[in-house]
Formats: sequence, C-alpha cells, structure tokens
Amino acid sequence: MNPDLAIARAATLRPIGEIAERAGIPDEALHPYGKHIAKVDGSWLRSLEDRPRGKLILVTAISPTPAGEGKTTTTVGLGDALNRIGRKTMICLREPSLGPCFGQKGGATGGGHAQVLPMEQINLHFTGDFHAIGAANNLLAAMLDNHVYWGNRLDVDPRRVAIRRVLDMNDRALRSTVAGLGGPANGFPREDGFDITVASEVMAVFCLARDLADMEARLGRIVVAQTRDKRPVTADDLKASGAMSVLLKDAIQPNLVQTIEGSPALVHGGPFANIAHGCNSVVATQAGLRLADYVVTEAGFGADLGAEKFLDIKCRQAGLTPSACVVVATVRALKMHGGTARADLSRGDADALERGFVNLERHVANMRSYGLPVVVAVNHFVTDTEAEHRRLAELCRDRLGVEAVPCRHWAEGGAGAVDLAERVVALTEKPSEFRTLYPDDMPLADKMRRIATRIYGAETVVIEGSAASRLKEIEAAGYGRLPVCMAKTQYSFSTDPQAMGAPSGHEIPVREVRLAAGAGFVVAICGQIMTMPGLPRVPAAEGIHLDEDGLIQGLS
Amino acid sequence: MNPDLAIARAATLRPIGEIAERAGIPDEALHPYGKHIAKVDGSWLRSLEDRPRGKLILVTAISPTPAGEGKTTTTVGLGDALNRIGRKTMICLREPSLGPCFGQKGGATGGGHAQVLPMEQINLHFTGDFHAIGAANNLLAAMLDNHVYWGNRLDVDPRRVAIRRVLDMNDRALRSTVAGLGGPANGFPREDGFDITVASEVMAVFCLARDLADMEARLGRIVVAQTRDKRPVTADDLKASGAMSVLLKDAIQPNLVQTIEGSPALVHGGPFANIAHGCNSVVATQAGLRLADYVVTEAGFGADLGAEKFLDIKCRQAGLTPSACVVVATVRALKMHGGTARADLSRGDADALERGFVNLERHVANMRSYGLPVVVAVNHFVTDTEAEHRRLAELCRDRLGVEAVPCRHWAEGGAGAVDLAERVVALTEKPSEFRTLYPDDMPLADKMRRIATRIYGAETVVIEGSAASRLKEIEAAGYGRLPVCMAKTQYSFSTDPQAMGAPSGHEIPVREVRLAAGAGFVVAICGQIMTMPGLPRVPAAEGIHLDEDGLIQGLS
Repeated sequence: MNPDLAIARAATLRPIGEIAERAGIPDEALHPYGKHIAKVDGSWLRSLEDRPRGKLILVTAISPTPAGEGKTTTTVGLGDALNRIGRKTMICLREPSLGPCFGQKGGATGGGHAQVLPMEQINLHFTGDFHAIGAANNLLAAMLDNHVYWGNRLDVDPRRVAIRRVLDMNDRALRSTVAGLGGPANGFPREDGFDITVASEVMAVFCLARDLADMEARLGRIVVAQTRDKRPVTADDLKASGAMSVLLKDAIQPNLVQTIEGSPALVHGGPFANIAHGCNSVVATQAGLRLADYVVTEAGFGADLGAEKFLDIKCRQAGLTPSACVVVATVRALKMHGGTARADLSRGDADALERGFVNLERHVANMRSYGLPVVVAVNHFVTDTEAEHRRLAELCRDRLGVEAVPCRHWAEGGAGAVDLAERVVALTEKPSEFRTLYPDDMPLADKMRRIATRIYGAETVVIEGSAASRLKEIEAAGYGRLPVCMAKTQYSFSTDPQAMGAPSGHEIPVREVRLAAGAGFVVAICGQIMTMPGLPRVPAAEGIHLDEDGLIQGLS
Repeated sequence: MNPDLAIARAATLRPIGEIAERAGIPDEALHPYGKHIAKVDGSWLRSLEDRPRGKLILVTAISPTPAGEGKTTTTVGLGDALNRIGRKTMICLREPSLGPCFGQKGGATGGGHAQVLPMEQINLHFTGDFHAIGAANNLLAAMLDNHVYWGNRLDVDPRRVAIRRVLDMNDRALRSTVAGLGGPANGFPREDGFDITVASEVMAVFCLARDLADMEARLGRIVVAQTRDKRPVTADDLKASGAMSVLLKDAIQPNLVQTIEGSPALVHGGPFANIAHGCNSVVATQAGLRLADYVVTEAGFGADLGAEKFLDIKCRQAGLTPSACVVVATVRALKMHGGTARADLSRGDADALERGFVNLERHVANMRSYGLPVVVAVNHFVTDTEAEHRRLAELCRDRLGVEAVPCRHWAEGGAGAVDLAERVVALTEKPSEFRTLYPDDMPLADKMRRIATRIYGAETVVIEGSAASRLKEIEAAGYGRLPVCMAKTQYSFSTDPQAMGAPSGHEIPVREVRLAAGAGFVVAICGQIMTMPGLPRVPAAEGIHLDEDGLIQGLS
C-alpha cells in the first residue's frame, strides 16, 4: 500500500466537535458532514469580525520539478509544529479537485505524518463545494444561451461568449465543442467548450469574496459575453447572480478538518494557479486569523506564480498582511534545477545542488522584495546526504543571509518541524513590512512588465497586437486599477518549461488578455495554458476500486 | 410568500437524531449532513437483512393535468396519518432534481402541512447524491473518449457511442453537440450531447441496485458504445466501474429527513419516469421495510407509467410485494379529463367530473389487475363542491367497488388523512395477491404489446423497422428476459398528450429501443422524449435570491 494511505488509515480521527473546541468554535456553529468534517457557520464567523487578527504565514516553494517539493506537507507539518510548541495555529489549504484524482496525480492532502484527514472524503466529493461551484457556473451558462434562444433582448453576440461550462473531470474531448445543434428547438449553434471547475471565474470569485454579499456582487459583475457592438454582458444583466448565490450559500462556509496530530485545518476553495490566483478562500483565511494566533497557508506552484498572486491579488483585495514567508526546497529538486537527471537524484551531488541553488536564490530574493522575512524549509528525503544539506545551509547563509532549516515532518509529523516553527515564530516577532509589488494605479501593461522583470528576471514583456488593444479596451472600461494574474508555465521563470534554474534576460510574450471582472483581476496569458486537463493512457481510475471491506484502493 | 414555503419556514425541525431514534436507527449508524439530514450507514442497514419486512403501500395517481393531483403530498400525509394512528411508518420518496428548480417547476417535497423538510436543502444540493451520480457518469464518458484517443484498442465506433454526458441543469443548448474539436490534442470529433442527470442509466442503476456490490456489477454492464462490428463495449471493458463505485459509495446510503409532523422519511434517488423507471432507490425502500411496519412510497407520473414501472421493473427486480395501492385523484383534475377548461375549474360541475372519471376508472382497474387492493384518495381543494365529492364517491362505489376517501392533509397534515390511513390498514390485512403483468420469458415485443393493450387500452403496438431489428439484436445478445421500460407521454394513455380521459383502440408506435443492460431493462421509445429540458422565457432562477436575512426567496 502507498505509505501515505497506510499512515492515513492508521490514524485515529477525533470527532470534529473536539477539533472545533480546540479551535475555539462552539458546537452550535458547526454544520457536520459526517463525523469528521464540518462547515463553520457563516453568521457565527461574522460575529468575530472585531477580534484581533493572528499572524499570517505563507508557505511557498521553488519552481516545481518532477522530484517534488512538499509544499502542502510542509504547511501541515509547520502547523502541527506550531501547535506543538504552544502557539495556537490554524492551517488553511485549498480543496483538491476531483478530476485529476482519476488521472495521474494523487490527492492533495499532504503526505506521510503531515496530512489532513479524512484523506479520501477530502479528495473526493468532500462537502460538495466544487459541485456547487460547477452548478452555479453552468446555471449562468444555461441562462445565457436561454436568453439568446428567447429573443436575445440584450443583443448577445454568440461569437463573443466568454463563459464556458465546467465539469470537475479531466475530459479533453470537451475542450472545444459546438453546442446548440439539432434544430430550432435546441437554440443557435455556436462554438463552445468546457473547462475544469477549478479554472472557472466562479471559483476565483468564490475564493476572493469577503462574504456572501460580496460574492453575490462579484458574481453579478462576471462578463459572460459581448454584444454585437462589443459592450459587456454581465451575469447581472441576465439576473443570474441571485440564484447563483443561493447555490453557493452553504459552500461559502469554510470546511473544518483535522491533521493526523489533531490540529484544526480549514480546507476551502481551490482555484487554478495559472488562469486564476491559486489560493484557498479569503473567507477561510480570515476565519483562521480570527480564531488562531498563527495561520499557516500555502499558494499554488512556485513562488513566482503562487506567492506573487497570493501577495498581489489575494492580500491586496482582502487587506491581508503576511508576517513571514517559508520557501520550501528539497535537495533533490535543487539538483534537478542544477541539471541532474531524475534517475540520478539519489546520488549525492553537492555541486549540482549548488548549480540549481540559483532557482531558490531568486525566489527568496523575490519574497524579500515584498518586505517579508523569509526562511527556507528543506524538506528532508532519505536519499539526501549530509554534505548536500551542509552545502545548502552554507549557500543560504552566505549568499542570502537566511536560515535553511531541515524538516522531517513527513517522517515525524509536527515533531520534525519544530525547528522551523521556532524560526518562524522568531521571524514574526517584528512588525511586517509587507508591500505589494505595484500600486493599483499603475497601467496594466506596466504591472505585467513589473512582474516579468522583477519576479521572472525577464528583460521585457511583449504584448501582442490584439492583446494590447484588448488591454486598452479594458482600461477604457474602467478596469485599469485591477491587479494582473499571469498565466504562465509553473516550471520556469521563463515561458519555456524546459528552462530550469534561473533564466534571465528573456522575453515574456503576452498572447491574450482576459478580463475577470467578478474575480477582480486581468489575466495575461503567456504561452499555452490548459484549462481542461486530459486523462493519461492508463488513467488512475482504472485501478481505483472498493475492496471487500469497502475500503478505497488505488486513490492517491 | 408562497404558502408551502411559509408553512415550511414556520415548522420546528427536530434534530435528526431524534427522528432516527423514532425510526429505530441508532446514533452510530447516522452520518449527519447538518443538523436535520443524515445518511444511514450501509453496513448497519446490511445487519438488518434478517428482520421481517413491513408492508409496502404504493401511492400513484390519475394521468397528470395542469390542475395538479398531489401525489407526493398524499404520500407524506398518509405516512403522517399512519404514524398518528400508531402504525410505525417510513415514507420513501425520490430526491428532486436541481435543474428544474431554476426553470418552471417548484420543489418536489410535498406541500401545505404535508411536506418533508428541510425543503430548501432537499431541493438544492441535498447530500450531493446527484452530483456524485453525474460525476460517475461523466467519468465513464471521459474514459471512453480517452480510450479512443490513446489508440482505441477496443475498436470503439465513435459513431455508435451510447453514453451521453450529464449535468443536473436545464440546458437545451447541450442536447446536441459536437465534441473533440480543436485538433489532435483534443481527440476525435464526434456527435455528442448531454442529458439531465436524472435521465442517465447511472441514475437508474443507482436506484435499482440492491447494495454497493450489486451497483458495481450493474455499472460494469452498462453498454457505452458499440465496436465497428457492432459488439457491445461496456463500462467493465473500460475498467471504469470500480472508480464509479468509489464516487457513489457514500451516495448509495439513503438520506433520512423528517416531515413537518416529525415522521421519518427516506428521500433517495430520482430517475426520470419516462426514459427510466421513476421511483426512489431500492436501497431506501428495503431499509424502510426493515425499519417500519408500513412503507409508503410513490411512483412518478400517472399509474400507467409510474406504477406500471414500479410494479414490473422495481418490484420484479428487488423482489418486493406491495400490499396496497392508493390512487390519488382530485375533483379538479377529473374535470379537466372531462373537458373543463383550466379557467373554469373552480366552478362546480359534477357532470364534467363524471365524464373525466373514465381516466380514474382505467387506472384503478389496471392496479387491480396486478392483484392489488385499491383505494382512491381524493385530495381536497377549497373550490370543490359537496355535490362533486358525492358524485365521485358514488362513481367509485358503483362502478369500481372501491372507496373514495376525501383527504385534507394539505390543510391539516396527518390528521386530514386519518380516514385514508385506516382504510389502507384494513386493505393490507389480507395477504397480497400481487403478480407482475408479464413473465420474464415473454419476448420483448410481446411485453410491450401487453403493456399497451392491458394498461394503455391500445389496440396494438407498431414497432418501426429499425427498432424491430434492434430488438432482435438485444434478444440475440441474451437480454430478452429483461422487463421493458416504456418512454411515453405522461399526459395520456395514448402517445398524444392532448388525448385526455381514457382513449381506446389507439396504436402505440415504438420508434426506437435502447438497451439499459446495467439498469436491467429495455427502453421502448414511443414518441418524442425529452432527456434534457430547457429553461422557460423567464426562468424561475431570475427571481431566486437570498434576502437580507440570508433566507432563500423565489424557490418553489
């Protein structure tokens, strides 16, 4: 059996009421989903508004490689360790998407002794949030086509429909379709397509909304299409946002679960980190900050994508001030950035590590440019050598002036991350000097340029003609003050996924820009971005089944 | 405010644990979904297998008219009344579909003082069962296209794909589509389309399965496509049934809720009553029969469609023996069958009622032909006259020898259906003489003919050429012993929805037949059958919203 699964199965789950009590949530504020999951009541959370906020700690990572970094694992391990040393801590994570579970990827609930539980429910339907988000999105899409069908009073141009339907499934056959075929009773044929639910703007809205009322207002602002004379048509024009909010009213309440060690964790929302901003919901993070002294949270992909969006989009919109930043690295992944082939990763090679260190170096410098104190968490693997760890610690100290703290939470749980926790507490003692990378009133193209040059190490941004004119339209329509959301490969600072390490002086081409008026950002698409994954030749689904004891086999 | 909603809001809900206790379900067998809904543990239910079974009472109705009959309301009212007179009773209902809530129709949780609660959750996502069914169906569809994409080892003919994707949404634009467009990375273009979730074979399988193992075996038998040489390709060939079962393992556990009067109700599963068999899950019905002395359940549409399928498909497959049948009629609806226009329904007209009585008469005779004792429940409306009720009672007595019992459960709750409950108890005192309409070994075409001539009063069945040859294929492949599922308009005994009353001597054309090998029936399509509804000109969704107190407005 997969060791993560074996450890998860061997864990004794506490009743969710006990976890809630530990987090300071009374029984009457819980909506249980089975014995080990509960939603936390939204009205009760609103009653905490005046409480002082805890300190927010962001866990991010180097550019991802096939060697793995362990960002979620470190987030969970750090949270457990903080609780262990007597700091009241809430862990805030994204909800996993269902579709990829049946493809290649395992779950997204951590690993080893640093997991959130119950692993299987969280990875499958959980509390139905993503199904609700899908239903809200698809209701909006259905109302748009229905509007056109019944006379098209708003003069929607069926060639300029922005909203796509969604499913929480890896299904490449739905990427590009023609809908409305079959004759007059079925409407007007038009080009259409499906995204995976996590790629939808409804998901981004859900995760950035302050509360139910803010969510409804944002949903109403979603631009679903343009008219023939290119005016925007919004969800409010279709009178859809009320019903969408009704579909989402339970989902917007954050989900409480536990780690293997019984720490409370809010697992809520999960937008893509390319086409959207890639962090858990603002509602959950704000709840955590009111309930605990420390909130540990993570952002998707490497720090150039995930942390940048966390800081420039989520923190900006929600008025959050992070107190410290943990950058997760592994010896193995740094060696891959230094040119080591995957097959050779188990051999000690401090020089390759030193070559790959440039990737970590830039991410750390980037995080510091936001005014954040940084610590490097070195997620330990059994194949790592002493010499490699020594070299990494020296490089961090000498070239960056930061500490590299070895962590063994995968093997040891919170006990393996106590050093990291103590370092994090020390870093958060001084007041945060957090600042965003750019001001609201910078022109959109300049915002893209600043991200590319300061964070990606690029020479410049090249905005293609049609994208440039769309940018002008967006600014003319009054959306120029929004932050930008860069949709770029996560594997490199450049747009070439093969360029590992720390490429410099490259160009970042912006092929297309999209307005996400509800989410409140402008997406800059740099290279191919996949919004509907496919299944591999042998999907994981083929091996997933229930055994004779009714236990799930083959998941994760 | 809608009176049903006002009554539902004014009701005091008991904690679901109390309802469970009343039903004899211990706390440890409950998986709560909030405070007023729980799933009943499947393993615990299996431990009841050896208990004696209670008596099964079917509530069905005359052919539906726009005047309304109140079948669900009567089912709830009768259940409450039986509990009131000291008979331990479980109510078993279908789960409502989400999509139609945003179109025209209100919820499907009863009305007045005869409702199951919490109305809003049950009508919206409830416990996520339909989302899980949709995900299982769509995983199967994705695995099929993925198989073709990666080399098509099974030689699937993309022109002969039987499985359609589903959404729980009214969305006519998806009825007929082309998928797989956009180039080689997206697969092979083919004609495709979506049904509403309740129309899927996965839903029918879910509702007919005895348990998890039976469900997995049935899912594996679903024929998803044919090869180029017309051999069937099943879900098992795609190795999909294990993962589908994992997606459905929680959903298959029945949902316990309460009526306004605190009677326990299992609300579980909800297949269409045209393309599928239209009753709640076998798992729930069997659970009810083990837990209670009486189970009151309903079947979709009028008795010619819903009850026929309940008796010939569900009871046959699950080995159920109903003890009595309640046929619901209203004075108003009978007058519509007698030719009264909708606008004139509030005027007393016993002669119109007598003309329309032929509809009730045939349904009652049909139910008796199954060996079932029958009582007519006359669901009272304020506009009914004494003279009309008197005439109806006389007609029932003189022409049918059955009792017509006036019921006022809408206004009075269970107290308004005590007479009906006492009559039902009396009817169930003698042992049931239930028999199905046809034996398993009758040829499929003869089964269709028997239903048409005996139940619909038709002269004959005309099976079109292509349907006849498909029937031969199906019988040659060994599926000849399956029952048939007639997909016909619910508004008439004929295939003309305008032909009210009791038309006779007509032809029933069978345009197409479809094998549902997993569900275990052969569908005979007689006329236009809609498997994906559309939204009306002004969808209900436009008026659905949350008010300032967070209460849902505009639903139902």
